Amino acid sequence: MSYLDRIAVCHRWDLDAYRPFMVEDTTLGRVTHAFARRLTDYPKVFQVSDRAVGLNPDLADFDARTAALREVLLCLRDAGDIRRWRNEDYPLVRRWGDPPFLKMERGAVPLFGARGFGVNLNGYVRRTDGWHLWVGQRSKTKDTAPGKRDHLVGGGQPHGLGILENLIKECEEEAGMPRELAMRAVPAGAVSYICARDEGLRDDVFFNYDLELPDEFVPRNTDGEVESFELWPMARVLETIRDTEDFKFNVNLVILDFAIRHGLLTPDEPHYQEIWEGLRLPSVL
Amino acid sequence: MSYLDRIAVCHRWDLDAYRPFMVEDTTLGRVTHAFARRLTDYPKVFQVSDRAVGLNPDLADFDARTAALREVLLCLRDAGDIRRWRNEDYPLVRRWGDPPFLKMERGAVPLFGARGFGVNLNGYVRRTDGWHLWVGQRSKTKDTAPGKRDHLVGGGQPHGLGILENLIKECEEEAGMPRELAMRAVPAGAVSYICARDEGLRDDVFFNYDLELPDEFVPRNTDGEVESFELWPMARVLETIRDTEDFKFNVNLVILDFAIRHGLLTPDEPHYQEIWEGLRLPSVL
Repeated sequence: MSYLDRIAVCHRWDLDAYRPFMVEDTTLGRVTHAFARRLTDYPKVFQVSDRAVGLNPDLADFDARTAALREVLLCLRDAGDIRRWRNEDYPLVRRWGDPPFLKMERGAVPLFGARGFGVNLNGYVRRTDGWHLWVGQRSKTKDTAPGKRDHLVGGGQPHGLGILENLIKECEEEAGMPRELAMRAVPAGAVSYICARDEGLRDDVFFNYDLELPDEFVPRNTDGEVESFELWPMARVLETIRDTEDFKFNVNLVILDFAIRHGLLTPDEPHYQEIWEGLRLPSVL
Repeated sequence: MSYLDRIAVCHRWDLDAYRPFMVEDTTLGRVTHAFARRLTDYPKVFQVSDRAVGLNPDLADFDARTAALREVLLCLRDAGDIRRWRNEDYPLVRRWGDPPFLKMERGAVPLFGARGFGVNLNGYVRRTDGWHLWVGQRSKTKDTAPGKRDHLVGGGQPHGLGILENLIKECEEEAGMPRELAMRAVPAGAVSYICARDEGLRDDVFFNYDLELPDEFVPRNTDGEVESFELWPMARVLETIRDTEDFKFNVNLVILDFAIRHGLLTPDEPHYQEIWEGLRLPSVL
């Protein structure tokens, strides 16, 4: 078992199994060929060809696209094509900060292979015996990754909320962290990946934040999504990532990024360059 | 002017202008078509086709490849094809830590578009009024980038020396930094790029280190390569990167990486995601 196994899981998909989902001239996602055929049922909304699925150009602005898509998604939900309706809208855009083309129910985003954004918090404590990381265990009743190890705080990035505001909200809900403490979190870049999962094609960019926590802070989950929190020595965290699949698949990337940024993994680590490269989408070369 | 201008400079090359340079089945670099034709003069060493330049498979190990290449490179030097002979060997390998296929005179590496490795040190001071970064000015008599702004310490990674050892050596030579201080530098990942320059195709991976320096430390150059050092507030560093070409082209990437990792640029920064993406080779999507 190696860090590279954890990374490989996050980059597993077959380009040939999808065709682009386009809005105007922008590829916003990828749909399976089967799902593309399914969308031919809605010819007023989608233009389906063998090579791509486009949105009808008559749907010329954010509101028109959002409303037309929503109507289709409600039909698909009723037909059982969308497994979990989240009642949360994601902006559809390739790069955070660009004006979104539309917003889409979160539960449908992987069906369209569209990019999702998220925030993650590495909550750490520095002690005389080294770095420690707060590790959560996801509730065993959660729909996705029940019982898996998780960050202190993480969450999807809905439309209409700033990234830091979202992080502060999640810190409150997931860890009972006061706003003043959460605001001290330091943004530190991102990780990205594309991989095929049960829910569809996940094309995610997660913005990472680090927060050094005082010794007396003890997280307390308020929304029932986390079963327990434990403060682990970093060596235990890294061993668990390397040797087990206990952490949620994408959390491995965020923690490896944290470890590389803080010199907790060094260039002497076997496959250091490959690990570093694996924390975002594969390069062209 | 924007950060993206600095990044674009580091990713400027035309794939069609090159053909692969192969050793066994591995693409180790890229050569211009004109240089490929030049290499047909050495049929015992190179197998040149319209699609690639390969090393003669009879050169079956590190020593044989190194010796045969060196003989060719000495001819090319005498013919004026290699502008600067550095008397320093680089390992030829795609990923640091893998066994190199051969070693090659540094001055020839860009001619073969082979990957070069390097180390860079962000030497910073945290004061009550914010983060400051030590900035060097390169000697006006340097061959490459004379007079440009630079890191506190940076250097190419020769064959046969560990990365941290190389950094410690460069810290001594370039900044007069004692070994005990240099050893506290924290590895923090890397940046990578491919771009066409006067010297050839630069395909570089730089390992980045951060070092928080005590207020009383003042760098002192010992090898004549740096004209002066100044401690700049981070805001001035970032403005200079954004609005001028004063920094050496690739130093911009390393400092932007430093700024992103420490939250000195935040997700609210325009084009944050694009800047973050630009700090390594472009992705497939």
